[in-house]
Amino acid sequence: MPDQRLEMIDLKSIIRTVPDFPKPGIQYRDITTLLADPAALKAAVEQLAAPYRDTGVTAVAGIDARGFIFGTAVAIELGVGFIPVRKAGKLPFDTLEQDYALEYGTDTLQIHADAASEDDTVLLVDDLIATGGTAEAAISLLKRTGCNLVGAAFLVDLPDLGGADRVRSQDVPVKTLVAFEGE
Amino acid sequence: MPDQRLEMIDLKSIIRTVPDFPKPGIQYRDITTLLADPAALKAAVEQLAAPYRDTGVTAVAGIDARGFIFGTAVAIELGVGFIPVRKAGKLPFDTLEQDYALEYGTDTLQIHADAASEDDTVLLVDDLIATGGTAEAAISLLKRTGCNLVGAAFLVDLPDLGGADRVRSQDVPVKTLVAFEGE
Repeated sequence: MPDQRLEMIDLKSIIRTVPDFPKPGIQYRDITTLLADPAALKAAVEQLAAPYRDTGVTAVAGIDARGFIFGTAVAIELGVGFIPVRKAGKLPFDTLEQDYALEYGTDTLQIHADAASEDDTVLLVDDLIATGGTAEAAISLLKRTGCNLVGAAFLVDLPDLGGADRVRSQDVPVKTLVAFEGE
Repeated sequence: MPDQRLEMIDLKSIIRTVPDFPKPGIQYRDITTLLADPAALKAAVEQLAAPYRDTGVTAVAGIDARGFIFGTAVAIELGVGFIPVRKAGKLPFDTLEQDYALEYGTDTLQIHADAASEDDTVLLVDDLIATGGTAEAAISLLKRTGCNLVGAAFLVDLPDLGGADRVRSQDVPVKTLVAFEGE
């Protein structure tokens, strides 16, 4: 059962803003201060998992690297397995792969071809959604396994960058816990 | 309380061996099959956490990227915070950094300088220990914060590569759940 005290924690206030990282003008939302706080960490995991308790989720997917932090924890909270979506070259078995655009150039994500199937209902979890390019690539990969992608959940939303809307336009429902406007 | 059924699971049998990855002659121990199994995932986290329940641990550290998978889960299991040890350039605040040797060349790990202090008792968690070079760099960083490093816990040990002994030679006790000999 959810702990009601954990629902009272102001997660946004525990996320540190570091100005001018990784370059001048960017306000970087630093979740390491939240990770360091046991109650906030537990609360974030419970709140990410809560909407999906009775949705038949069979696996949680998380994106390399920070998506592994909350993805695994949410998987355990829901009593299901975890699917790592990885940067190219890291997964040893047969893979599916998807390129996506970076600010300069492209990068590639992979999942194991046997990571999910038509019998699975999968939730994608990541710590932050910005422009949504990485999430869109992960969604593409998961859909190619034939699974039912039930939703995408993010701790932090930067709504001015449009990523959550971009994911919704892929017919994937989105939930976020904290939003920073004016990015 | 630990679930006794979870103590019966043969974790080793659920780890897939992929031959010749990332290069010919290497038997790659693929934990994604264990991550996909809800009971095995839960059991691995409980077994990694169990020896440290009454040791005063205040934080768990995990190494980028696969160490985030079990590190966060063990932190939540122990009711403490999580410290990400990251590849260079990923952490936005003041950092400590440590180079370490790869097969060809070097790489660099960082932690936030305020990630731990003399008041902390820290457990390092990773999925696998091979030669121990990355673990040694992470240990060096954690010790520089002044914290008490109470131990290092790994799901998989490749004992022929000597990493666990290398970590023990840094005066850090090591626990591992599964060993693959003959590497």
